[in-house]
Amino acid sequence: MEKNWFLQPCVVLNETARAQALARQDQLTKPPGALGKLEEIAVQFAAWQGVEKPDINRVQISIFAADHGVAEEGVSLFPQAVTAEMVRNFARGGAAISVLATQLDAILEVINLGTVSFVEPLMNVRDERIAAGTENFAKLPAMSSNQCNTALLAGRNAVLRAQQNGVQLFIGGDMGIANTTSASAIACALLQAPSSLLAGPGTGLDSTGVIHKAKVIEQSLALHRLHHDNPMEVLRCIGGFEIAGLSGAYIAAAQKGLPILVDGFISSVAALVAVRINPTVRNWMLFAHTSAEPGHQLVLDELAAQPLVQLNMRLGEGSGAAVAVPLLQLACFLHSKMSTFAEAGVSGQG
Amino acid sequence: MEKNWFLQPCVVLNETARAQALARQDQLTKPPGALGKLEEIAVQFAAWQGVEKPDINRVQISIFAADHGVAEEGVSLFPQAVTAEMVRNFARGGAAISVLATQLDAILEVINLGTVSFVEPLMNVRDERIAAGTENFAKLPAMSSNQCNTALLAGRNAVLRAQQNGVQLFIGGDMGIANTTSASAIACALLQAPSSLLAGPGTGLDSTGVIHKAKVIEQSLALHRLHHDNPMEVLRCIGGFEIAGLSGAYIAAAQKGLPILVDGFISSVAALVAVRINPTVRNWMLFAHTSAEPGHQLVLDELAAQPLVQLNMRLGEGSGAAVAVPLLQLACFLHSKMSTFAEAGVSGQG
Repeated sequence: MEKNWFLQPCVVLNETARAQALARQDQLTKPPGALGKLEEIAVQFAAWQGVEKPDINRVQISIFAADHGVAEEGVSLFPQAVTAEMVRNFARGGAAISVLATQLDAILEVINLGTVSFVEPLMNVRDERIAAGTENFAKLPAMSSNQCNTALLAGRNAVLRAQQNGVQLFIGGDMGIANTTSASAIACALLQAPSSLLAGPGTGLDSTGVIHKAKVIEQSLALHRLHHDNPMEVLRCIGGFEIAGLSGAYIAAAQKGLPILVDGFISSVAALVAVRINPTVRNWMLFAHTSAEPGHQLVLDELAAQPLVQLNMRLGEGSGAAVAVPLLQLACFLHSKMSTFAEAGVSGQG
Repeated sequence: MEKNWFLQPCVVLNETARAQALARQDQLTKPPGALGKLEEIAVQFAAWQGVEKPDINRVQISIFAADHGVAEEGVSLFPQAVTAEMVRNFARGGAAISVLATQLDAILEVINLGTVSFVEPLMNVRDERIAAGTENFAKLPAMSSNQCNTALLAGRNAVLRAQQNGVQLFIGGDMGIANTTSASAIACALLQAPSSLLAGPGTGLDSTGVIHKAKVIEQSLALHRLHHDNPMEVLRCIGGFEIAGLSGAYIAAAQKGLPILVDGFISSVAALVAVRINPTVRNWMLFAHTSAEPGHQLVLDELAAQPLVQLNMRLGEGSGAAVAVPLLQLACFLHSKMSTFAEAGVSGQG
């Protein structure tokens, strides 16, 4: 593996196919533009797939799970054991993303990058533990350079598997108790914004809890003195294994020409890291939903992202992205299967 | 048929099932409320279906098609022949709603309540033509009382078929050149709002066209001198056969306990008429999307409706509702199939 693989260029979009798809949209039996964002989605997938009529038959959902040392600062309502417990729940089919993956007939895999608790071997769970959680970034850098690179590469490897699986869409998911604290801290550093704007309730903190979380973030930022134009160092010092995994996956997906559907707050922060490392990664991203986590909107704005749905979700796991998959599939079906005015014998504008 | 069937009471929701579903949601392996609107949807369907774990296996889409005399005022870009041409397109599978119905495995039927052009017998198209379009309401009442009642009953009959088909969700669709003019006029009358707020581009009028449309509406309202607390007379004088069909269908669905997913602007105006005729009809409605037609938001606000998605669609045909169906289905799957904390052995809040 080349050392700086993440700086390699991304695939360029096919503008000929985009133009063909746009021309087709204007011939379909509807007023021009009447299918709104569904038209834009179909045209975008045409440019991604390099064909006039794209389709999305198969989706891969890769969930990156890991624990965070900063959990010891009391920033989450749930005990750290939940990360490993949820890894089991993903594998056994009981979690939200498991149910969604079944209904979507999507490939679901879990990459354990570092739970604190032991997880026995499980179907569809990859044991790639880097450490028993990151260090507490309120006191130390969360990761070593080696650890951060390993996590990024784990993301890349998930995309290589997705490619081998022949999927047309990649969704990354996250699981990690305290990871909204890490994601908020990263967003603060990259957006140069105060923690009061980025810290939110996560799994359900009350206002006192949110204020404490914001203070932990502010102190950590003061400790590490990070610079916004060094995203890799931001990721290493205050990130998490699963966030780095997502960033690595997004970069690799764009380098391989695999469209990405970004989930909620954690995923969008990982997307921001990826785009700051390699700006044209942005060209391969669609954003699924606006999370109820209040900091999400700021991150979306920075990425010039307009998510498809607003369902007030805040679960992670890739769940918000999975919920939006049928909209993408229906957009492509409409684009491919509707009749043109000529085919249907319908009159155009008078 | 009893003369005033539309005033008969609607089915009362099952609050026991709602409470059971709410209790179940709090036990599922996620932070409370983390699935946002998807939780609300599942709980609502529990109250509708009277079971703790609802499902939406089968959907019926009934499209009401008819022409409007007011088209002769030059309020649409498309010729009136398009209404009948689109009826054929629905039946032959080339229209947006046809593609969506196929993908959703939904029952699709078209009820022709009065196209100006002849339509040969077609599979899944019911010929229930009341007249060759309504009268031009800029000059005369759009319908006689008899005609309006016949259209309402046609809607009720569609719901009776849906019941026989054993569906769990009813979607109404509309097709009728110039029907945004009729719907905007109805909304003006019922909301006591000026036409400048309710008239929009429809299939794509420019600003000059929208101003002309608003003027036609304002003059028609002056002609008929309608009272906002007489929704039936509003519907008769400035409505359309397909809008009356939708209103009748919504009322009957609520009377039969069949949940309704309301589409866009035309459908929401028909929903407003239905709710003004029989207020508890509202209890059986979910709203799918916010249309790009600018008047839609005012009508939604009046109905205290918060649509599920904003995709900038403005096609009608029930298309915006159909697109939202997978979200409802996924909401019910998540609710029924996720594990509880106890089942999964996941720790709760610390």
